[in-house]
Amino acid sequence: MNKRAVFHLVAYMTLVIGIAMVACAGISLAYREPLSVQLSLVYSGAIAIVCAGLVGFLTRGDINLSRRDGFGIVTFGWISATIFGALPYIFSGVIAHPVSAMFETMSGFTTTGASVMSDLEAIPRGIHFWRALTHWFGGMGVLVLCVAILPFLGVGGMQIYRAEMPGPSKDRLTPRIATTAKLLWGVYALLTFVEVLLLKFVGGMDWFDSFCHAFGTMATGGFSTRSASVGAYDSAIVDTIITVFMFLAGINFSLHYYALSGKPHRYFQDPEFRFYAIFLSCATLFITFNIWHADWGSLSRCFRDSAFTATSVITTTGFCTADFDQWPNASRLLLVVIMFIGGCAGSTGGGMKVVRVFIMFKKMVRELKLFMRPSAVIQMKLGGKPVEQEIISHIAAFFAIFMLIFAVGSFVMTFFTPNLETAATSVIATLGNIGPGLNAVGATQNYAAISPLGQGILTFFMLLGRLELYTVLILFLPSFWKK
Amino acid sequence: MNKRAVFHLVAYMTLVIGIAMVACAGISLAYREPLSVQLSLVYSGAIAIVCAGLVGFLTRGDINLSRRDGFGIVTFGWISATIFGALPYIFSGVIAHPVSAMFETMSGFTTTGASVMSDLEAIPRGIHFWRALTHWFGGMGVLVLCVAILPFLGVGGMQIYRAEMPGPSKDRLTPRIATTAKLLWGVYALLTFVEVLLLKFVGGMDWFDSFCHAFGTMATGGFSTRSASVGAYDSAIVDTIITVFMFLAGINFSLHYYALSGKPHRYFQDPEFRFYAIFLSCATLFITFNIWHADWGSLSRCFRDSAFTATSVITTTGFCTADFDQWPNASRLLLVVIMFIGGCAGSTGGGMKVVRVFIMFKKMVRELKLFMRPSAVIQMKLGGKPVEQEIISHIAAFFAIFMLIFAVGSFVMTFFTPNLETAATSVIATLGNIGPGLNAVGATQNYAAISPLGQGILTFFMLLGRLELYTVLILFLPSFWKK
Ligand SMILES: [K+]
Ligand SMILES: [K+]
Repeated sequence: MNKRAVFHLVAYMTLVIGIAMVACAGISLAYREPLSVQLSLVYSGAIAIVCAGLVGFLTRGDINLSRRDGFGIVTFGWISATIFGALPYIFSGVIAHPVSAMFETMSGFTTTGASVMSDLEAIPRGIHFWRALTHWFGGMGVLVLCVAILPFLGVGGMQIYRAEMPGPSKDRLTPRIATTAKLLWGVYALLTFVEVLLLKFVGGMDWFDSFCHAFGTMATGGFSTRSASVGAYDSAIVDTIITVFMFLAGINFSLHYYALSGKPHRYFQDPEFRFYAIFLSCATLFITFNIWHADWGSLSRCFRDSAFTATSVITTTGFCTADFDQWPNASRLLLVVIMFIGGCAGSTGGGMKVVRVFIMFKKMVRELKLFMRPSAVIQMKLGGKPVEQEIISHIAAFFAIFMLIFAVGSFVMTFFTPNLETAATSVIATLGNIGPGLNAVGATQNYAAISPLGQGILTFFMLLGRLELYTVLILFLPSFWKK
Repeated sequence: MNKRAVFHLVAYMTLVIGIAMVACAGISLAYREPLSVQLSLVYSGAIAIVCAGLVGFLTRGDINLSRRDGFGIVTFGWISATIFGALPYIFSGVIAHPVSAMFETMSGFTTTGASVMSDLEAIPRGIHFWRALTHWFGGMGVLVLCVAILPFLGVGGMQIYRAEMPGPSKDRLTPRIATTAKLLWGVYALLTFVEVLLLKFVGGMDWFDSFCHAFGTMATGGFSTRSASVGAYDSAIVDTIITVFMFLAGINFSLHYYALSGKPHRYFQDPEFRFYAIFLSCATLFITFNIWHADWGSLSRCFRDSAFTATSVITTTGFCTADFDQWPNASRLLLVVIMFIGGCAGSTGGGMKVVRVFIMFKKMVRELKLFMRPSAVIQMKLGGKPVEQEIISHIAAFFAIFMLIFAVGSFVMTFFTPNLETAATSVIATLGNIGPGLNAVGATQNYAAISPLGQGILTFFMLLGRLELYTVLILFLPSFWKK
């Protein structure tokens, strides 16, 4: 690994984080909050900026990156952002234990949205805004990672998206990444801004809440400014707006880019989008009737809660309007299954990604057909294009590794949680970057009851899941560190 | 499918079942049990014999089997045995509902050992012996299926065992299967007989219990004659004998054959055996210290219970000496993970099979290495021999299908069980042919509380798991039924 170049770029990312923290002090000032809040943000920002400047200066020089350096940049970038981003929580006294503060920050930057805080109404706005901003920055990072970087690094079969990336196609990798990033960030910022306006002028939220919730939605993050999450607004309009934007955030952003470029038909040509939309519709209908049958209110109310929750879970946002942990077991288990699926590739959503699940599903059908006629030649296709055996093999391995980490993680978490349901769902909720799980980490609960060591382990799962496992896992291979 | 030939062979299997039921009436007579018990067995046997004779006569003729017919024979063979084998329970009034009786019988023939009966001490010995015999016959069927048939049908990567099968190697398939079957059954009968003698003369059981428990052990079945299972004997010697024979029953029977032919070193040359032995030892040690730490008794007692339980679960036998459902969550979850692994290929054990898990594990390591160096050529080896990519792909598909069935099955079972733990473990306990799960289907519980429809669904999972999924699943493909 080219440590100098890697840390130079990490320093650059840390600088942005530092400036943003100082800007949050401005928000706090505007709301006339106590000076201590503003100082905690300014000090944190200053520390980040100074460290970033120092490291950036010491590592200055030409930047020539190899494929391997890519892993170092994303992993250490996220870790550095988390370390510096945790400072405002600690300095302001909002979160006492440093590991808990790191948990909250990693939860922000990985757009997980799992929280250790309970009384959110008591948290200063400056801190809230910083917390929401960690989501929004995290979402920006994820977009570049998933659409522009991972397909080239070839993480778990994501090679299939190499040709799909918007932007100039014949350039060298680095300028191409920059161009693609700008296009995607444009789409991301536009959608966020539209949602802010809708929440403010149609949903009736104030500007502050509109921004915080729009950041949480488009990043599929899930941090709210209210303890009761989106349910606190008790508004069908707010629920609908957020449901729609969560749905959009769970779609491949390349498709949004093409739609904005006048090619909206590309949504329906995309097999992953079709699977996502159909599966989500079926799950919503099932849950609607399941909870309606269990007397959770009128059919329209059940549909509203079901659509919101199913969308929130499949996109791995984690906003809540209903305590789905109280729903019948069939709905609860379906939600857990949905957690494994996650959003579309190239969205800000987490989980295993719809396209992988879809290809695994096709692989199973193909396997049974092949078993029936061993001599048959069956080519697997995705959206009319053949999928290489190699890619399918990568995806199968990704699936197995994901399941292994889930199993080992659940086993480890039995030592930190009261029961198996909590242990298993705390792992998938963090590994899949969802946020809430079931039982003691359910929709109305939080992660404060888990000991700092347990929180630290879950923090690692958030990073592992967000960086699609391999990017982090290969740092544990000794050969990675060899020159 | 050549229906005539398939049903001719199924009739032949049913005939054997019928004769065995009549023989059990003799056991009942010897113990001077009420005439009604003997009549229930004689009537059941007579019905099976008459039906088998009739179908056998109507379908007489040349037997020319295609690959596809193999699936029909095993699936319909198991189903027919279950239908006729359930009659004694119904006629004797031991089990009232016909679906429950089918559940108990399928549980016997698939060597699952899940039971709907609670007061086992009140059950007549004639019925007990029949129940134990369903295990023993099931085990014989499994041995032929797994060692001689599945490798040729190519179920989920089992092609790797084609060359491993004992017996003449250059013959045509049918006589080779017959020869292999006789060799394996010889080993199976010998081990069963040795266990009977040990249980009788060293363990101090009576002849009847010795036979029933030896049948249950060698078939990795798990039906006991006591409500408290093997725990009822409260004997360290009995526990040790059964632990050792469960361990043997979970090993590939080809290895036993080679050992008896004077090649015991082949055990240690077999990578699957090594993985099985090492993994089981580690799990036993972990559970020992975990339950000892939670004050479950002296270290030696904890070791005895842990070794028995871990062996019982990994071999998918399901005998119990301790209520492992009361153990700490870490041990409980580890046991559930072990349920997925199951016994070695070519043993009477169920689950996904050790070799598949081992190869998936190697695939994951290979994937990470490939990810590190995309241009590297990494050949996967098993016991020094290269494993084809095609086989690995089959195993990955098997793993995914197993997981999908587990997820869908757990979802369905939420409608029949009180909580998610019960729903999920009832599925893995039947799909993996283990028997007991956790919670409401735990070690001291049974399946009587599940409604007949739920029991029917679990009966299907037992068959699905026992016949390695595909054999049953392809019957649902319309193309299977075409000429
Ligand atoms: K989230
Ligand atoms: K069993």
